Amino acid sequence: MTKSAIGVGLIGCGTVGGGVAKLLRDQADLYEQRIGRPIVLRRLLDKEKDRVIQSGLADSAVVTDDVDSFFDTPDMQVVIELAGGTGAASVFVKRALEAGKHVVTANKALLAEQGPELFALARENNASIAFEASCGGGIPCVTALTFGLMANRIDALYGILNGTCNYILTEMTGKGKDYGTALADAQKPGYAEADPTLDVTGGDTAHKIAILASLGFGVNITGDQVPARGVDGLDLNDIKFGDELGYDIKLLAIAERQPDGESVSVGVEPCFIHKTDLLAQVGGAFNALSVYGHAVGHTLYYGAGAGQMPTASAVVADVMNIAAGWYGPAFQNMKLTPDLHAPAKLAAPESLVSRYYLRINAIDKPGVIAQATAALGNAGISLSAVLQHENNAGSYVPIVIVTHKAAQGDLLAAVKQIESMQVIDGSPVVIRIVDLPDE
Amino acid sequence: MTKSAIGVGLIGCGTVGGGVAKLLRDQADLYEQRIGRPIVLRRLLDKEKDRVIQSGLADSAVVTDDVDSFFDTPDMQVVIELAGGTGAASVFVKRALEAGKHVVTANKALLAEQGPELFALARENNASIAFEASCGGGIPCVTALTFGLMANRIDALYGILNGTCNYILTEMTGKGKDYGTALADAQKPGYAEADPTLDVTGGDTAHKIAILASLGFGVNITGDQVPARGVDGLDLNDIKFGDELGYDIKLLAIAERQPDGESVSVGVEPCFIHKTDLLAQVGGAFNALSVYGHAVGHTLYYGAGAGQMPTASAVVADVMNIAAGWYGPAFQNMKLTPDLHAPAKLAAPESLVSRYYLRINAIDKPGVIAQATAALGNAGISLSAVLQHENNAGSYVPIVIVTHKAAQGDLLAAVKQIESMQVIDGSPVVIRIVDLPDE
Repeated sequence: MTKSAIGVGLIGCGTVGGGVAKLLRDQADLYEQRIGRPIVLRRLLDKEKDRVIQSGLADSAVVTDDVDSFFDTPDMQVVIELAGGTGAASVFVKRALEAGKHVVTANKALLAEQGPELFALARENNASIAFEASCGGGIPCVTALTFGLMANRIDALYGILNGTCNYILTEMTGKGKDYGTALADAQKPGYAEADPTLDVTGGDTAHKIAILASLGFGVNITGDQVPARGVDGLDLNDIKFGDELGYDIKLLAIAERQPDGESVSVGVEPCFIHKTDLLAQVGGAFNALSVYGHAVGHTLYYGAGAGQMPTASAVVADVMNIAAGWYGPAFQNMKLTPDLHAPAKLAAPESLVSRYYLRINAIDKPGVIAQATAALGNAGISLSAVLQHENNAGSYVPIVIVTHKAAQGDLLAAVKQIESMQVIDGSPVVIRIVDLPDE
Repeated sequence: MTKSAIGVGLIGCGTVGGGVAKLLRDQADLYEQRIGRPIVLRRLLDKEKDRVIQSGLADSAVVTDDVDSFFDTPDMQVVIELAGGTGAASVFVKRALEAGKHVVTANKALLAEQGPELFALARENNASIAFEASCGGGIPCVTALTFGLMANRIDALYGILNGTCNYILTEMTGKGKDYGTALADAQKPGYAEADPTLDVTGGDTAHKIAILASLGFGVNITGDQVPARGVDGLDLNDIKFGDELGYDIKLLAIAERQPDGESVSVGVEPCFIHKTDLLAQVGGAFNALSVYGHAVGHTLYYGAGAGQMPTASAVVADVMNIAAGWYGPAFQNMKLTPDLHAPAKLAAPESLVSRYYLRINAIDKPGVIAQATAALGNAGISLSAVLQHENNAGSYVPIVIVTHKAAQGDLLAAVKQIESMQVIDGSPVVIRIVDLPDE
């Protein structure tokens, strides 16, 4: 017995929306076979109605640019929001939920900003929000974190969650390009947008880790609570020095349960990781998420973090899981979303302990290394490596210092002291070195 | 409002069963918070009742060695089968399903042999079978393949699915141990069992890929349909030659949709993969599964493939997903299990196309390489590399030949011809070289 069709409305027929329309059209038989009922695209809302009709991705009768007409469509149980941003998208999502429709979204900015409010609204209306595509593109990491790893107290997440940044860093590392060249080269094939700000400053990554950390730790963390440093300030010299020391640089989203067991730290910054780490093998526009659970240990999820069809894959899976009748109850019965959780107890940044890479630009004369390292020694910070090459150019020379574990507050205070020394030129470069936990 | 408790019965309190009992006891509050109802271990069936009671893992009143008493336990909605094997375990699973209880199992042998019958029985009784722990231990790869990647036509699976074999190969590769030494060293810390036959011959891996390929391709493949070659015949010399050529050896489970789009190939064998492949980075007792979907491209899932707590993590997640009320409907509504699918159209092994590594032992005199390579040339097989070191020992010398793509049937016919040459000693070694698909 075939069940009745499930009706879908799609808001936004850009890159990802086009992929979704394509999948629903081309794989209709496969999907019906898998979930036992047909999925029908009942309505498609896009401001550029004519462009969409010309693309041939949907029947012209289905396409509209009128919001009311879209929401008045009968037999539309699921709304896919791919409008993006936190303005109109928020209005659309609320309107859908209030009408008791399930929502599927890839909108990390919206969920990182308004997640609790929207999740609560879904609960009230006996609807659900599915958001696999919001983090890690096509990688089913939300599914893994919520359903697959349910038996674990999650202890840490380390993610490469922005394909643009990872592509830029891979080009800088592998081909010795400077940041500006790597960015320009990423824009040509579309790996970076014309305005790459949200990506390269770490903002997009911050949104994603806010969502994932909220789920993993069972707390409520919003995007604006995540301190983010991007790849835009990176100097190729530091990548080269790191290489010499055995490290690769990655823009990491990090969320760690602190030793007290209650507070958590969340942040985004370019970090050095050991070249032998699995995360260091994630190249180009790919993404990966490492999850450490108290029972399972280390698990890692890898795949395309963006792009038309990978993201559409995640969106359509969400639609199918709703259509199969299980995602709704799972959303309602499981207490996983941040609307049900207290705000996270965030650890004070100055208390966070890590190893660090420092590069200072010093006058090339005797005693300078001693002076700089004394400042670290006085702060109780011991060193694991110092690197200075022979100087063939000018009166300043870069000195690289690798520390043992130190509290961030102590480290930054010592760096400030070093910065004020007359023998030092400019600001020291500080990059966190992440020693990933035992598996 | 807290819902009523869900009652669980556990069959088998060995390594994994002990881990499950531990999790249910130690994380009861966390689990209740996540799914909104308590999970209660109502009964534990084990032949060694006294040992289990002494372990303190369960109330003595809960432990029984009497099968009827176990199944008569009231308020027991979920049965966890960790007895192992395909005899008593099958009887237990059927009895549970016939009583309308959900079953959670880690038993790959049982599912690879009797899966369709058991899945059908679950459907008839409005129950379900959850089996995340049967493949890839703690890695939620079944969840990813069934729910997360639903929108994809799956094109290929490549898995490192046996921790024992991967541990042995990592020791052989990294430390230059021969097979016997690596196996003995794996037995000491418990990475290999006292009788490692099922692991090292590839049988266990064959069970797992039968299950995963059935799910991925939407067909019915049983374990005995999977040709398996293990790691037990491997010669350290081939690992060293492979290393020189840029390859690592891995015991790969491979399932590929064939170019005709309908037939599939499934098999288990030690393969050479490029050192730069992500799968080549999977070391020690860890597992990984690479999945290629038509929309998402390449995704990979990595983690502990065995061990007490990782496997218990997967088992308990299954229990929680059932208890939360969504896994049952998902199992019933989605048409994913092999009881609903036709037997796979398996491609003829001789038609499979791949690159190959050959090692022949030849008399060290002029013209031998020409003679051996002529046999390949006559079969239309071209070569990409030939490797012969200077000979300082004896009258025979190993010659390594790397072919371009060739049909397995043609390759093996040529190898047979080479083997029959008077200048060749013993049987040539043949190892498949896998060039993983574009991402």
